[in-house]
Amino acid sequence: MRLVDLRSDTVTMPTAAMREAMYRAEVGDDVYGEDPTVNRLEELGARMTGKEASLFVASGTMGNQLAILAHTQRGDEILCEAESHIFFYEVGGLAVLAGVQAKTLAGHRGILTPEVVKPAIRPQDIHQPRSSLICLENTHNRAGGKCYPVETLAGIYTLAQAHTIPVHMDGARIFNAAARQQVAVEKLTAYADSVMFCLSKGLGAPVGSLLAGSRDFVETCRRYRKMLGGGMRQAGIIAAAGIVALSTMVERLEQDHAHARMLADAVANMGIGFDASDVETNIVVIDTMQSGKTAAELSACFAGQGIKISQFGNHKIRMVTHYGITRDDIQYTIDTMARIIKG
Amino acid sequence: MRLVDLRSDTVTMPTAAMREAMYRAEVGDDVYGEDPTVNRLEELGARMTGKEASLFVASGTMGNQLAILAHTQRGDEILCEAESHIFFYEVGGLAVLAGVQAKTLAGHRGILTPEVVKPAIRPQDIHQPRSSLICLENTHNRAGGKCYPVETLAGIYTLAQAHTIPVHMDGARIFNAAARQQVAVEKLTAYADSVMFCLSKGLGAPVGSLLAGSRDFVETCRRYRKMLGGGMRQAGIIAAAGIVALSTMVERLEQDHAHARMLADAVANMGIGFDASDVETNIVVIDTMQSGKTAAELSACFAGQGIKISQFGNHKIRMVTHYGITRDDIQYTIDTMARIIKG
Amino acid sequence: MRLVDLRSDTVTMPTAAMREAMYRAEVGDDVYGEDPTVNRLEELGARMTGKEASLFVASGTMGNQLAILAHTQRGDEILCEAESHIFFYEVGGLAVLAGVQAKTLAGHRGILTPEVVKPAIRPQDIHQPRSSLICLENTHNRAGGKCYPVETLAGIYTLAQAHTIPVHMDGARIFNAAARQQVAVEKLTAYADSVMFCLSKGLGAPVGSLLAGSRDFVETCRRYRKMLGGGMRQAGIIAAAGIVALSTMVERLEQDHAHARMLADAVANMGIGFDASDVETNIVVIDTMQSGKTAAELSACFAGQGIKISQFGNHKIRMVTHYGITRDDIQYTIDTMARIIKG
Amino acid sequence: MRLVDLRSDTVTMPTAAMREAMYRAEVGDDVYGEDPTVNRLEELGARMTGKEASLFVASGTMGNQLAILAHTQRGDEILCEAESHIFFYEVGGLAVLAGVQAKTLAGHRGILTPEVVKPAIRPQDIHQPRSSLICLENTHNRAGGKCYPVETLAGIYTLAQAHTIPVHMDGARIFNAAARQQVAVEKLTAYADSVMFCLSKGLGAPVGSLLAGSRDFVETCRRYRKMLGGGMRQAGIIAAAGIVALSTMVERLEQDHAHARMLADAVANMGIGFDASDVETNIVVIDTMQSGKTAAELSACFAGQGIKISQFGNHKIRMVTHYGITRDDIQYTIDTMARIIKG
Repeated sequence: MRLVDLRSDTVTMPTAAMREAMYRAEVGDDVYGEDPTVNRLEELGARMTGKEASLFVASGTMGNQLAILAHTQRGDEILCEAESHIFFYEVGGLAVLAGVQAKTLAGHRGILTPEVVKPAIRPQDIHQPRSSLICLENTHNRAGGKCYPVETLAGIYTLAQAHTIPVHMDGARIFNAAARQQVAVEKLTAYADSVMFCLSKGLGAPVGSLLAGSRDFVETCRRYRKMLGGGMRQAGIIAAAGIVALSTMVERLEQDHAHARMLADAVANMGIGFDASDVETNIVVIDTMQSGKTAAELSACFAGQGIKISQFGNHKIRMVTHYGITRDDIQYTIDTMARIIKG
Repeated sequence: MRLVDLRSDTVTMPTAAMREAMYRAEVGDDVYGEDPTVNRLEELGARMTGKEASLFVASGTMGNQLAILAHTQRGDEILCEAESHIFFYEVGGLAVLAGVQAKTLAGHRGILTPEVVKPAIRPQDIHQPRSSLICLENTHNRAGGKCYPVETLAGIYTLAQAHTIPVHMDGARIFNAAARQQVAVEKLTAYADSVMFCLSKGLGAPVGSLLAGSRDFVETCRRYRKMLGGGMRQAGIIAAAGIVALSTMVERLEQDHAHARMLADAVANMGIGFDASDVETNIVVIDTMQSGKTAAELSACFAGQGIKISQFGNHKIRMVTHYGITRDDIQYTIDTMARIIKG
Repeated sequence: MRLVDLRSDTVTMPTAAMREAMYRAEVGDDVYGEDPTVNRLEELGARMTGKEASLFVASGTMGNQLAILAHTQRGDEILCEAESHIFFYEVGGLAVLAGVQAKTLAGHRGILTPEVVKPAIRPQDIHQPRSSLICLENTHNRAGGKCYPVETLAGIYTLAQAHTIPVHMDGARIFNAAARQQVAVEKLTAYADSVMFCLSKGLGAPVGSLLAGSRDFVETCRRYRKMLGGGMRQAGIIAAAGIVALSTMVERLEQDHAHARMLADAVANMGIGFDASDVETNIVVIDTMQSGKTAAELSACFAGQGIKISQFGNHKIRMVTHYGITRDDIQYTIDTMARIIKG
Repeated sequence: MRLVDLRSDTVTMPTAAMREAMYRAEVGDDVYGEDPTVNRLEELGARMTGKEASLFVASGTMGNQLAILAHTQRGDEILCEAESHIFFYEVGGLAVLAGVQAKTLAGHRGILTPEVVKPAIRPQDIHQPRSSLICLENTHNRAGGKCYPVETLAGIYTLAQAHTIPVHMDGARIFNAAARQQVAVEKLTAYADSVMFCLSKGLGAPVGSLLAGSRDFVETCRRYRKMLGGGMRQAGIIAAAGIVALSTMVERLEQDHAHARMLADAVANMGIGFDASDVETNIVVIDTMQSGKTAAELSACFAGQGIKISQFGNHKIRMVTHYGITRDDIQYTIDTMARIIKG
């Protein structure tokens, strides 16, 4: 039976070029700052995002949490979208690690606007926490891979600067946004004080993310990274794959998007109320209500045909395209889904 | 000029009976559990709320934060209304002290229902915090003193028990709810595992609140109270006023409610879109938009006539009736407001 | 049977003058900064310690924890004596509230010196927390009420300033130190950036402490006090007793010291290796080893004669003199102890 | 010029066999538990330490911090040696992450005994934190690689169990202890409820440590690992090197010990008061006082000859032998040091 793993783009396997690069990687002790491959990766990450510096971290969650730690003081409040990864999927880390609370705002299809953010900024008041960070998730995972329009980013950044509140971009899939919008990543990251992006999702590296920002910010994060136990020794091994990812895997993201659109167009014709225009990048989130099946039931049906998907609550499923998914896999998924829906 | 302080019911002055009781209070060292007046107050508080025990605390915020500390473990998530005091006005304490994050839910006029709470309870998932506490604010301050219908409390409690999640009631003004609904307080607190209520708001005591629950819960809170620096020595002095408050001041809350209704009925006729039925207890929150004035402008106009009110954001004002406000004060406020609105 | 409570000076009852002052106290809502009695007390506390401002808090623990919160950032390290109250008796608050760790140093009879503090200050190193506060306990409770010599305070303060590390003085019993050393309190507090002192121990007020420092420091603490739930409304009631305590009870501390010396001199003659010169103020800590009895056994014997004492571990007892203890009580205690020791 | 890096055994380069294993590693998404290589490594780690399960983590610090998080609740106290890594070198993480304070105990040459631990266990008392974890560092880094005698481990474990306090072993270099004592590692780890050990120090893997304990403990840690951002995707790449490390690098640790002894014997003859018997494993800590040079001066002299060492405070240096150090390197280091000392 064909196996199609659409659960997440985190399941991608390292490419042959990555394995080769890891095999040959020149390494050193990165806690001493002496791993040449890590240093090269961090310089590359900084350059691509237009920031002074970047830091190699074990995961996107670590990158986001470090950004919160560095931008806030205990007792502050951060603003983020109600279904953002930082709030939804990071195990309560923002409260335990940074000691901050999150004011969650409902975005339109996951996307916040200056109009939504502005009234949420706290006044100075002895009863209230200080608003000290705005977090934007671009693309927005739970909303189905939605992108922030550049002018929205600009608007929020202008608002933030007027209140001297920094902006952190959870750009786990920022390269997907850039590909969709056909702009350089740095056009997007220009509107954030810090940005985290993953090497291990669509870009296919086995492990790791980068956190970019000003030099001071990165040095503060480096210290907090040590506190979280994220200081790794000869990390150049995995950083080597990250360099390959950034150098060779960015352009092919459009292929994942094409696959997602192909899937979306087909599902839109299945009569379950799905709107293909909801799919902007490589994530397809489908409301299962009109199919008459729960997410769990659909998931089981797919699994019986070798297709793995994710459940997003009781009546939503998520399918993510990536490097390991071919056009044939998509066709097989479409055919399978059509059969399931027909019952 | 007449002075009318409608900012909050926290501004109430101790009554003559309270001063007398404090003067004569028998005291001891409460950290050793030896203050007879504190002990009497705590027994009274437990009895009135139908709980095994209660704890005298310095403020409502302290009571709420202790409840969160006792009911949760670091990294958990609590569920509360988006404008609840716990989230809005406690300086981020839930994150710093307990290390938990708050999932805020939009209530209907501040009131949550089982339908709103249920989907917010997290599934077991390695990415997600554990849902470990539901907080209900009754009456709800920022929503304008709204009461939870008893059947809503019962419905949420049933849901909570089905998920073995405790319910904490922020009952800072629970006696106002009971007065409005003409039930004994214990009919309301029956649907919560713990309840905090203030002696220092409508009940007029100078300082303090009680936190009631099971004996184990209260002992856990006693320990955390010491950690917060809330262990007070001859606290019987202020507890004595609390006993007077609970014994003699509960019944007169209806008078505050009548004053608030009188004010509400008048404002409803001022042509600024105010709905008098929004006022259930002693809090009057007015949207100023249709008056053509901001909250700050209205506040300044009132201040010029000796009337103090609170601003709730840019276009809302709050007026709270209490022991120190007479029928004449209300009439004066109405007349003043009418003049301000006419311009 | 005579009752003599030597457990702590926290058991003192409010004096008639205090009760009178509380009865007549002019009050207001202190969260709004409008309680005139609290304001007067805070000004008095600032003046007496030579600081810009002071803050009324519910307990010494609250004052100490606020100072730590205000002086540090999460992840920092504070330096304090190994048996200091902050580390020993504050329920782990420094870690939960401020997120700091304590490097504990062994003092000589509780007293730290520049020589002990200096090597404990951390170098700048990515593996190590930042040393960000030095805490001195004066008088030192567990060491038996020991005082810091003025020149030691000066030496540590000079060292601290050279490293731009603030000094906090846990002066719960700072007036006892000043009485012993026959200096004004401000001569001692001059060598600290912040000082907490209790109104409720030897000075006899029922509830409360003051935390003094720069205006900025106090405003930061005021905010954190709200977060801990220490914002109290008509707190002027208890502040009134604090004013009486500071105005009338300071001079009589020498009497407590005389009583402690009388007790110490007698115990020194009981052949259990006790050195009377160990007693400097109102605390008498006795090693019970040579008496052949454990602390628990001695405590039980005393209790049988109406005398309450504290146990400090298995072989130490503590007796504290205070306003409620007369010369006759001391004589009775001496006689009783002599009988117990003889067996 | 010859280059000899004795700063730490963390600087070791991956061996050819490790590179080969990483190149060929079968991988999967470890956050889903599907990385076969990680799973094999974790089983191996569990088996070698005699525990039910183990967890692959990014660093020793992460393993230690996870153990603290899992064994404690906020506000607890852990007991550890005064110069232990957990307290000294983990950036205050125990306070920020777990919200616990550390009671530090002075070991004899870094080694704690039941006699030292017992009196430090707190009684039940409302003022005091709960003693909830004992941490032992074996071998002890700052004390110069000292090993816990098996009977000492047994004694502390018996004491701990009598108080139902778990024991965590920071066994970053536990294989060095086992090699020195010529016992299987599981004979040492039998006296701990959890143990962390590093693959990246003497065992030469590029990245990673294992944290072993009961199945429940490991599952709790897995969750906290996600919170710290330590969940890595195709982590099998680096885990592959860990398997090689555990399979092939353990036996050669004796060679590092022989090199350390060779160095120690030579230094003992240099007339600077060094005692060769202080060296038990692969760490040589030398007090520089009698050499008339500070640590910084010695370090600079060595550096001029291509030898890198660590400074431990002002008058201590540390040299660590490892896989990358040959007998000739040691001889060169001895000769160089002799010249430096002679001046």
